[in-house]
Amino acid sequence: MNPPRTGRVWSPVVTPFADDLAADLRRFTAHCRWLLDNDVGLAVFGTNSEANSMTVGEKRALIDTLAEAGITGEQLMPGTGSCAIGDAVELTRHAVDNGCAGVLMLPPFYYKGVSDEGLYRYFAEVIERVASPSLKVYLYHIPPVSQVPLTLDLIERLHRTYPDTIAGIKDSSGEWSNTQALIEAFGGEIDVFAGSEHFLLNTLRAGGVGCISATANVNPGPIASLAHTWQEADADTRQAELTALRREFERFPMIPALKAATALYANDAAWRRVRPPLVELDDAQCQALKQALDARGFAMPGRAG
Amino acid sequence: MNPPRTGRVWSPVVTPFADDLAADLRRFTAHCRWLLDNDVGLAVFGTNSEANSMTVGEKRALIDTLAEAGITGEQLMPGTGSCAIGDAVELTRHAVDNGCAGVLMLPPFYYKGVSDEGLYRYFAEVIERVASPSLKVYLYHIPPVSQVPLTLDLIERLHRTYPDTIAGIKDSSGEWSNTQALIEAFGGEIDVFAGSEHFLLNTLRAGGVGCISATANVNPGPIASLAHTWQEADADTRQAELTALRREFERFPMIPALKAATALYANDAAWRRVRPPLVELDDAQCQALKQALDARGFAMPGRAG
Repeated sequence: MNPPRTGRVWSPVVTPFADDLAADLRRFTAHCRWLLDNDVGLAVFGTNSEANSMTVGEKRALIDTLAEAGITGEQLMPGTGSCAIGDAVELTRHAVDNGCAGVLMLPPFYYKGVSDEGLYRYFAEVIERVASPSLKVYLYHIPPVSQVPLTLDLIERLHRTYPDTIAGIKDSSGEWSNTQALIEAFGGEIDVFAGSEHFLLNTLRAGGVGCISATANVNPGPIASLAHTWQEADADTRQAELTALRREFERFPMIPALKAATALYANDAAWRRVRPPLVELDDAQCQALKQALDARGFAMPGRAG
Repeated sequence: MNPPRTGRVWSPVVTPFADDLAADLRRFTAHCRWLLDNDVGLAVFGTNSEANSMTVGEKRALIDTLAEAGITGEQLMPGTGSCAIGDAVELTRHAVDNGCAGVLMLPPFYYKGVSDEGLYRYFAEVIERVASPSLKVYLYHIPPVSQVPLTLDLIERLHRTYPDTIAGIKDSSGEWSNTQALIEAFGGEIDVFAGSEHFLLNTLRAGGVGCISATANVNPGPIASLAHTWQEADADTRQAELTALRREFERFPMIPALKAATALYANDAAWRRVRPPLVELDDAQCQALKQALDARGFAMPGRAG
């Protein structure tokens, strides 16, 4: 396939919260800078960002905060999908106005069992209302959470109608066969991202672009490194290491575990907080996570302090 | 049990949309007036209202429209639950400020498999932030759609902490055994509503309050009538008639069918419109629905024009 439009590895940036649960702008900006220093793009407002636990106003303000900190739009791929078209349009427009590389769009996820026709109309309505040649939409397939899958037929129809706007897809189905089918169907035309580094090497070898992964929040350097040097001889070994580390996180609820690791390895307890309905890891869980990560020599170099 | 705090039958009011998909204020107000004329309360912003397809701003404006039309808060039980605490607080406050009888609260529904502890913190946070003695919360259990159930343990804990605020529950599980368990556990203390008229008579006989039902949008009079005269000799016959009529609607996607029936029997085609990701019934489906309803002598008396 052609070179990807964007970076190969993105992180759904975890969002730090203050004790009143407001977004913590200082910690957020610091974390974003560290990710960029490690060659990982900022897919802010993803599932692992607790994005749907924030209002549109809160998310707009976070984009503004990054802009004021000099973090430019091309390093950003905000999640903007929402149940309500009005919310999706408002946040997508704000992303476009800030020159974002793209937006990662969930389907509307309240109603279940909806038709491809209905989902097509939703995405088309958002695209038509935003009405910008700068808009690049990355579709977000995450049926284990959204419970609303995006079929190949739907993606094909959207891409046919909006070839300059539909730029890619993130596949968080957790099924390699689906990622493979997406690459076979669209790999020459749109950027296919695996939903985690589990399938990073497979994705790159098949002609996909890279991954957008929760654990890129804590292990960005090694993931980005594999994405750029995947044709080297030790690629399988490095993939196995990434996978083994990721599995340590998967033994816990992912978002609380990412935040606990950041709290532990950046030595900043405030990072543990999550918004309801999530619950932070308890002390025993933190200890178990630390023990497992220490045993693998895990670190977050440059992140402390 | 004690007399219910509110009316016995509520309708999750279907929301009419103009051809640009904006809420149609005139048709909305007219439909609300007709429901009230038929002794059915206005549970605006329910699942069948396409509430999650609307922004908080749109929902605030609809409450304001009803207030301007002289429809008072005691006739309203708006749905205010949302994935984001900030959205839920804003809309709940607006409902309280307008003197609404209560609010019907979905749990946050993006994350799946969340704990009772996390859900408790969510509801507690909203209640503490709204901080009004006028707030009456009706919890909304609808696992087939939200995929996030409310357990008896959770309800009990919330009611114990906030006995003056947790006022009731709507059970849209579709399982009579669950409604029965709720009435047995809480029927003396909070108002238990069945999620449809299927279980209206069972609910009333067991000590529940009534129902909050999609089809009260189109068949309000007979449902409200049974709720008020359920101790009369012909109650079972009337329940069977309500159930048979409801089943005709259940052969189609419910929201498009409710709107199609309103379009057909109020002779106003604009009512057919839905917001994506829903799709309106096609002509053949409308015809099949009308044939089935005509065969049952269905009408919406006083609704035409």
